[in-house]
Amino acid sequence: MIAEIIATGDEIRTGALVDSNSAYIADRLEALGIDVLRHDTIGDNIDLLSALFQEVGGRADIAVVTGGLGPTIDDLTTEAAARAADVQLALDEVALQDILRFFEKRHRTMTDSNRKQAMLPVASQRIDNPVGTAPGFSMRIGGCVFFCLPGVPPEMKRMLSESVLPKCRKLLGRTREASCIQTISTFGLPESTTGERLEGFGDRFPDIKLGLRAKFPEIQIRLYGRHVDEETLSNHMREAADWVREKIGHRVFSSEGEPMAAVIGRLLGDRQATLAVAESCTGGLISHWLTNVAGSSGYFLLGAVTYANTSKMSVLGVSTETLDRYGAVHEHTVREMADGVRRRSGATYGIATSGIAGPDGGTPDKPVGTVCIGISTPEGSEGSRFFFPFGKRQMNKQMFAMSALDLLRRKLMAADT
Amino acid sequence: MIAEIIATGDEIRTGALVDSNSAYIADRLEALGIDVLRHDTIGDNIDLLSALFQEVGGRADIAVVTGGLGPTIDDLTTEAAARAADVQLALDEVALQDILRFFEKRHRTMTDSNRKQAMLPVASQRIDNPVGTAPGFSMRIGGCVFFCLPGVPPEMKRMLSESVLPKCRKLLGRTREASCIQTISTFGLPESTTGERLEGFGDRFPDIKLGLRAKFPEIQIRLYGRHVDEETLSNHMREAADWVREKIGHRVFSSEGEPMAAVIGRLLGDRQATLAVAESCTGGLISHWLTNVAGSSGYFLLGAVTYANTSKMSVLGVSTETLDRYGAVHEHTVREMADGVRRRSGATYGIATSGIAGPDGGTPDKPVGTVCIGISTPEGSEGSRFFFPFGKRQMNKQMFAMSALDLLRRKLMAADT
Repeated sequence: MIAEIIATGDEIRTGALVDSNSAYIADRLEALGIDVLRHDTIGDNIDLLSALFQEVGGRADIAVVTGGLGPTIDDLTTEAAARAADVQLALDEVALQDILRFFEKRHRTMTDSNRKQAMLPVASQRIDNPVGTAPGFSMRIGGCVFFCLPGVPPEMKRMLSESVLPKCRKLLGRTREASCIQTISTFGLPESTTGERLEGFGDRFPDIKLGLRAKFPEIQIRLYGRHVDEETLSNHMREAADWVREKIGHRVFSSEGEPMAAVIGRLLGDRQATLAVAESCTGGLISHWLTNVAGSSGYFLLGAVTYANTSKMSVLGVSTETLDRYGAVHEHTVREMADGVRRRSGATYGIATSGIAGPDGGTPDKPVGTVCIGISTPEGSEGSRFFFPFGKRQMNKQMFAMSALDLLRRKLMAADT
Repeated sequence: MIAEIIATGDEIRTGALVDSNSAYIADRLEALGIDVLRHDTIGDNIDLLSALFQEVGGRADIAVVTGGLGPTIDDLTTEAAARAADVQLALDEVALQDILRFFEKRHRTMTDSNRKQAMLPVASQRIDNPVGTAPGFSMRIGGCVFFCLPGVPPEMKRMLSESVLPKCRKLLGRTREASCIQTISTFGLPESTTGERLEGFGDRFPDIKLGLRAKFPEIQIRLYGRHVDEETLSNHMREAADWVREKIGHRVFSSEGEPMAAVIGRLLGDRQATLAVAESCTGGLISHWLTNVAGSSGYFLLGAVTYANTSKMSVLGVSTETLDRYGAVHEHTVREMADGVRRRSGATYGIATSGIAGPDGGTPDKPVGTVCIGISTPEGSEGSRFFFPFGKRQMNKQMFAMSALDLLRRKLMAADT
């Protein structure tokens, strides 16, 4: 069964608004085992809309349309669908009552333009909108069942899951396949090398499609599996994931698509350990990532963003001598920073970053992209230096922050063995 | 002149990734005065890709394609374009040298799969990629000039503005209208209220289209102007922006679409003042935003992410008595935190946050979404309490961080008068 998705509206066509509805719908349809072939975005133009509906009606089994059901003259989806199927509009009494009730509940008066929203194509089926004024509808155009929904995300999502997906399940009937997506997150290998290491995957696992996705600074390996038998699929997925992990080795940091900070949180939690961070060039990003994880207050004791050397001294206790002798970006300095933040906070582990995120501040010796990372543990401390050639300040911050967390991750894992 | 936009890739087709490239490209093309007709999204399938290229080649004057130029076997755009135009691929020596240099600079070895990226359709023109390995290319398919770019947003954006848009300007030739986009950034009003305050804009400024865009936690007001005469346009834009600013008042924080942290940086710089930040619930996000601005090391002295009460005491000097009596989330406590971080760093201003970002930790008295914000200045310090009903941890962090910076912004501006 093949589906297409259509987003309508000038604000999406002109790029004033990013369309996140189509991705949401695609993900839900794919999870049901329906192949999404194509998405289209088109503006508020009745001729183009009805032509597109006919085009898709000749190609797909199912189409989900968002937008254009509102009360204004720009809202043309209903009229375009009627025109594409060559039917008239008629007042839907139930829809009208629903809209009236919506306004009554809010002590507002219904306008004539809202009445327009109760006009639906003849022979269409109303899709109730429990959270807004615009009802949706489903109808056949060509060989395809169209589901027309509002563009407001919470309304669309609710109507999709309560009405559209159950109908799709029925349409699928016995042909339904089990499907499954798994995300394996990696850091530290370029996309091309990752791809090369995974060569031969397709021959080995014919039911499973492999996709690489650069989600800077991670590379995610996505496995898309589909099979008539759920248990076979789950076995194949497990084998495929094992094979991938073997090929990529310690560069895999999560087999469930978790963020690095969540992995660190779990590792610290398992060890009943705590963490403190001293950030210079990463400027708070490591702390921000760590605290995005719910429950991080259980192990994250202190983040010190010490841009100024005076702060490195007063908060972390880095010595004037070290700063004078080695400068702020140096293995020795980050070691003292990591030791300092660990001591100050009483945490089990301390990590520290100092580097040149750019665009200014580079020297021939320490060009933009240089970072020193310090780790302080109960067993001792160390500092290392890396160079990342990305140029852009915000990319450098992300690369530096991720490298520091990944070093800590490997340190925590090594401590087990 | 009519343009279409094509996003390729299974991760977009299946909804694993939201395509923000197409909106970005549409916005830039529309700003040039090019009508974007339609966007299409399609997966990594050579037959469907080349058929779509032919379809668009018969409909549009310009097409911008993103994705599918990487080194792996999934990357099919180049081959599909060659097939659609019925030409062969040939090695582009300059592209190969660029890729080699890219790897040399990073002390890495080029792989065979990267060599594939230097194969371009015969009779295409290379588009240099200054930030990655995949060169783009432009070529004619049917009556349409195709620009094929990588899907990685920073690479796409750079190549679009440096190569594609200048070529589009040339193609436009004399038919070009002057066009202009201005972004006015606001914080603190809901989107619906912002819209209501701007009612009547269309009648007053008929050449200028108004768009609202929720870029959480900001609301951006976008003005899209187009006119045959550049000077008239620029006058109308100025009048329209003045009118908007008057309607929205102090909720406008930038008339050039700058991030809040850049506005704060400018205000501090103008006053030769410095800043330190103590963050509890915002967890480093304020520091991260501030340090995203190049040159922030000139005024940002210290960020202290003091999740643990012990850190609030040891780094910021908050008294045990205050914590015992008022708790961590309280006007008194954030005042002491702001005073403490200011004193510790020697900065002119100190700000502090403490609140409940969720999902846990709420009480009837202080539900999730409660935040206290402290500001310490040379004239004294104060603490205030706010409540935001967003529920989600990451949204709360952003709302809290933005509120703290906005309070500081208004304090800095008020100090002038």
